[in-house]
Amino acid sequence: MQLSTPHLLGIRDLQPGDIQLILDTATQFKEVLQRPIKKVPSLRDVTIVNLFFENSTRTRISFELAEKRLSADTINFTSSGSSVSKGETLLDTVNNILSMKVDMVVMRHSATGAPHFLAKHIPATIINAGDGINEHPTQALLDAFSIKEKRGSLEGKKVAIIGDIMHSRVAQSNIYLLKKMGAEVTVCGPPTLIPKYMKEAFGVQVSYDLKKTLQWCDVANVLRIQLERQNQVLFSSLREYNLVYGIKRRMLDELKKDIVIMHPGPMNRGVEIDSDVADGRHSIILQQVENGVAVRMAVLYLLSNRSSNDN
Amino acid sequence: MQLSTPHLLGIRDLQPGDIQLILDTATQFKEVLQRPIKKVPSLRDVTIVNLFFENSTRTRISFELAEKRLSADTINFTSSGSSVSKGETLLDTVNNILSMKVDMVVMRHSATGAPHFLAKHIPATIINAGDGINEHPTQALLDAFSIKEKRGSLEGKKVAIIGDIMHSRVAQSNIYLLKKMGAEVTVCGPPTLIPKYMKEAFGVQVSYDLKKTLQWCDVANVLRIQLERQNQVLFSSLREYNLVYGIKRRMLDELKKDIVIMHPGPMNRGVEIDSDVADGRHSIILQQVENGVAVRMAVLYLLSNRSSNDN
Amino acid sequence: MQLSTPHLLGIRDLQPGDIQLILDTATQFKEVLQRPIKKVPSLRDVTIVNLFFENSTRTRISFELAEKRLSADTINFTSSGSSVSKGETLLDTVNNILSMKVDMVVMRHSATGAPHFLAKHIPATIINAGDGINEHPTQALLDAFSIKEKRGSLEGKKVAIIGDIMHSRVAQSNIYLLKKMGAEVTVCGPPTLIPKYMKEAFGVQVSYDLKKTLQWCDVANVLRIQLERQNQVLFSSLREYNLVYGIKRRMLDELKKDIVIMHPGPMNRGVEIDSDVADGRHSIILQQVENGVAVRMAVLYLLSNRSSNDN
Repeated sequence: MQLSTPHLLGIRDLQPGDIQLILDTATQFKEVLQRPIKKVPSLRDVTIVNLFFENSTRTRISFELAEKRLSADTINFTSSGSSVSKGETLLDTVNNILSMKVDMVVMRHSATGAPHFLAKHIPATIINAGDGINEHPTQALLDAFSIKEKRGSLEGKKVAIIGDIMHSRVAQSNIYLLKKMGAEVTVCGPPTLIPKYMKEAFGVQVSYDLKKTLQWCDVANVLRIQLERQNQVLFSSLREYNLVYGIKRRMLDELKKDIVIMHPGPMNRGVEIDSDVADGRHSIILQQVENGVAVRMAVLYLLSNRSSNDN
Repeated sequence: MQLSTPHLLGIRDLQPGDIQLILDTATQFKEVLQRPIKKVPSLRDVTIVNLFFENSTRTRISFELAEKRLSADTINFTSSGSSVSKGETLLDTVNNILSMKVDMVVMRHSATGAPHFLAKHIPATIINAGDGINEHPTQALLDAFSIKEKRGSLEGKKVAIIGDIMHSRVAQSNIYLLKKMGAEVTVCGPPTLIPKYMKEAFGVQVSYDLKKTLQWCDVANVLRIQLERQNQVLFSSLREYNLVYGIKRRMLDELKKDIVIMHPGPMNRGVEIDSDVADGRHSIILQQVENGVAVRMAVLYLLSNRSSNDN
Repeated sequence: MQLSTPHLLGIRDLQPGDIQLILDTATQFKEVLQRPIKKVPSLRDVTIVNLFFENSTRTRISFELAEKRLSADTINFTSSGSSVSKGETLLDTVNNILSMKVDMVVMRHSATGAPHFLAKHIPATIINAGDGINEHPTQALLDAFSIKEKRGSLEGKKVAIIGDIMHSRVAQSNIYLLKKMGAEVTVCGPPTLIPKYMKEAFGVQVSYDLKKTLQWCDVANVLRIQLERQNQVLFSSLREYNLVYGIKRRMLDELKKDIVIMHPGPMNRGVEIDSDVADGRHSIILQQVENGVAVRMAVLYLLSNRSSNDN
């Protein structure tokens, strides 16, 4: 079995069969991660470069762990301390790295489409680890894996995505994935943080009422308020945001059903999610992080030449 | 043989038998470091994350070398370029990393008690690589190893710790260790840099007279003047500090005995120690650095599950 | 076969036989890099520290890849986040690292002679990865390898070095190497960027006329305009520099010969070189990058004790 694409640029480009294959493969790798010896030799002698032009803790470490547990050789590159500060173009930077015979590139960039541009011009496998406000496909895959693990399947499930839909690549990748796999999606947040075309363009429902949204859904994926990405005042204060759209323990208790709470991290505790929800019994936030390594191992393995040789 | 503690948070928590076990194990690893092949497979497939929230050269590299020579997989994390700058809490940052199935955490943090806080809340082995002005246990262990190597034992030895006692986690860890192992300790420095309660709280002697202290001691551990940590003027100038408390060649020559000079580094040459002392025949400063790798290998090995399975 | 020197500090110290040996060994490693498995066990259990006191992308990654493909263990050190910011001397920093039993040091530093100073005081193999405006020997070696690969030999070849000769360690290392290996060299650029003594000191020709220089040469090595290193205005504007000394497609077409265009990177496209030249059929710029890994593998291998044991 093989993916229909040589890169992972976004969920938009994937077939449902691709998504299914990645999730199934991740199940096998998650089993590996439960063993005392968490390492497999699948990508021995494969060289992977992690190109992070934007800050990241968990995504970079998650990919690096996935690579090391597949026995790949890894090279880290962050934009600070690099020739990017000498004015070199992105294409030159990456072309140079690839001339050194690197097999795969994992890339995060603040510009939408940066990995797509590279994939057109460069003979290596590219994995998008987040591009601008466009996509963050491995996050959507690990979210889907976590929902399936908790609820059995994605088909017919009701998923709410709550918060700053406008600036969120996590929201966009999740919407593409959930719709492809047959889930129902509602986006919920203040009108200033939800683009006007959501319903028409994506086939999702739009709600400005958190309480009703929580009553409707099986799973609530709570987005981070990305203060660093906003340059206008889109809501009056963090305190008011928390009052109207923050997820609180009391709300969940009143629901009288077994809702699943997710968050891609890093959390602003007391803003979009309260601590007793983040650490409470509905939350699968840390399982998401654990699943992230398994899902990234699956993606790296399936996109390497190794998997096609093996199968 | 096993340590009485699952973490290494500070020397204060260790039993004398723990210290002895670490030093004995380090002796074996030092022997490994003399071989052409300095690597052993002891921690193969163990993943260790080095979390350095404070700048460090030698401690980070020393731990990383210790880890690689035990064949562990290592992940480096420094606070710059991390989601800490996005406002995530320390607990969330570390919880996330641990959800990725990391086995051990080596941690340096500017806040006293940060590793103790984590150890209470997190199911992984934690090694304190320096927390605020509290403790730096592996430094005290390598200092002890170096004294034993040079003088045969710690029991009954007279050790002076000279300099900025007030702000030094190295001083505090050394005092705990030396007292537990039966050495006599004098702290020496300007009154403004020695806390008033030293004698009562720690059972050490206090001296403001460098010459008398050097005449008394077998070993002098000269601390770094940590300018970056002081926000008040505690002595009139670096030049005056050097005149009154700097270690000079002439002083050592006048002693007519075989004193041992130590320094945890990085040195301010010409301030707390003159170059002809740092590089002179009494100095074991570079042996301390060499021993640091062996001692850290011992700590990592003893705290891993591997050692308990083996023994 | 062995090199006549225990370090690689500069091309100036090498014998022609040394250069030949490095280039021949690089040919073998380049063959390794064409294989699906690009890794050899030559430096297994050798520990190499990459000490980069100056920013670098390609050189640091190129060395790190070379080290990993030789199966060495690598430790990265960059000046930011290090005890260098605590005022420690260079010698103390490196002495400390070496006390940890590191076998080889790859070093970049803004001060001319920094690696030579270390080599005098430190018992480890030192490889200069660029020191101030002095030398960048592995760049000259990979340039020579690339010329040989394209043109069969260096003997008698006409090589032009074009641009900021004054501030370029790449120019200086190239000149030493090309003269030792029997090539003819012309340096070409604006008078303000060419030191007055070039002809007498180095036995090279000096030209201020780009067109004539291109007509003369077989190979043009186009240097980067290193804006960050200049603190005086040495030419009126980047636009004017491009008009007079930038390499343009039209010029090469008019030559009616098969000239080779090289650039050490990172390129300022539209300043010293136009994009249609950089990406055109005369350019071997990406081959240079590829050859860099092979040449650095050769240098590391030949300077390790392993090679002398093997041969």
